[in-house]
Amino acid sequence: MAGAGDIGSGPFEVPPPAFLFDLDGTLIDSVYQHVTAWQEALDACGITLSVWRIHRRIGMSGGLFLNALQRETAQDLDAATLARLTALHREGYLRRVESVAPLPGARELLASLADLGVPFAVATSGGEAVAGAGLALLGLGPEVPIVTRDQVRRAKPDPDLFLAAAKSLGVVPARSFVVGDSVWDLLAAQRAGSLGIGLLSGGYGLEELQAAGAYRVYDDPADLMAHLEEVGVRPPS
Amino acid sequence: MAGAGDIGSGPFEVPPPAFLFDLDGTLIDSVYQHVTAWQEALDACGITLSVWRIHRRIGMSGGLFLNALQRETAQDLDAATLARLTALHREGYLRRVESVAPLPGARELLASLADLGVPFAVATSGGEAVAGAGLALLGLGPEVPIVTRDQVRRAKPDPDLFLAAAKSLGVVPARSFVVGDSVWDLLAAQRAGSLGIGLLSGGYGLEELQAAGAYRVYDDPADLMAHLEEVGVRPPS
Repeated sequence: MAGAGDIGSGPFEVPPPAFLFDLDGTLIDSVYQHVTAWQEALDACGITLSVWRIHRRIGMSGGLFLNALQRETAQDLDAATLARLTALHREGYLRRVESVAPLPGARELLASLADLGVPFAVATSGGEAVAGAGLALLGLGPEVPIVTRDQVRRAKPDPDLFLAAAKSLGVVPARSFVVGDSVWDLLAAQRAGSLGIGLLSGGYGLEELQAAGAYRVYDDPADLMAHLEEVGVRPPS
Repeated sequence: MAGAGDIGSGPFEVPPPAFLFDLDGTLIDSVYQHVTAWQEALDACGITLSVWRIHRRIGMSGGLFLNALQRETAQDLDAATLARLTALHREGYLRRVESVAPLPGARELLASLADLGVPFAVATSGGEAVAGAGLALLGLGPEVPIVTRDQVRRAKPDPDLFLAAAKSLGVVPARSFVVGDSVWDLLAAQRAGSLGIGLLSGGYGLEELQAAGAYRVYDDPADLMAHLEEVGVRPPS
């Protein structure tokens, strides 16, 4: 049995962290295109919902979003309407996707993590078609694991996406930082046992992200990159 | 000289409050249309700015917005570019204005204040053309004073718009509640000497509005209407 004087090797060999990134609002500037695509889809189905309420749900799975919507509008939507909403949103987003750009510093941050040998993956509540259009902007190589909505049972705020992303990197969630712009990312991070890093670039307020459990909050990927040493990433010595 | 027993008539005759409403994000659901119109205008002038940074500036005067923009992008814009941005934003917004709707409860709230004889006015950082398109959705009669950007020297967060609105009602600002969705409304309210009521319907976070000095925060006009007695409006007795 180890005595008090035997500090062992365990806790003093902390491995460098891994990073599990959300996509929309975190690496690419696509939240407002999603918001307006949802509003257009809802309008087309005769459903009125204030835009800020849609914004506050972005980053949830489409299914949970539509559940919340039914609760807020006190409407029961049939399966055909739900399927139509999902299809209209996808179509509306893809129509707007050419106005989507990487967020400042996103490409540089990922390149810098790769250079430093820090493992990272992307985990998004979007389906494959929507995610693919955004991921193309980041120029990621095939070595970066991407987990999309289709690959897990439950999307955010359930932790499945981030758990799958950690697994694909071969790291434990407790060693990983989840980086996201929405309260749903940060709640999912807590459920996954990871520390959460909030970014303001999705349009949420600082205090909302802190209240959802963010360990640190930065403006956007460029600001995170300027403060990497705060989250355990050190330049090569 | 009045003794302690003489309570006089002064402080015990508090007149009912007046309300000075912001327009965009407060009475009509137009913030995201403004945000995307600004983004399009900036893009057309070759200026890249993340959408969340534009959102956080909505509700400021266009001039202050463009000043902040120059600071954030470290660019000096010439007068021609500034004029072009302003024109492109106006044009882009008016192109989107058919998707703008009154916020839930807005028309009912204003009708109810009118029924109760509570004075109110609208004060907006927008120019006359942009404001007119939105105001038309509310069906206000000519008896409601409207103050637009063109009528005052400085827009929010300076207090001029709300001071002019109070004056047009013949009330003192200290007797008036300013109702707005942005931190700029609430900062201007403080400068005007009014209490501020924040609404979440413009997409700002609760805590941001509280930090900017909101006396109370509600979801939207419908939620404010359901809590009017909290801000001194009583049903006729």
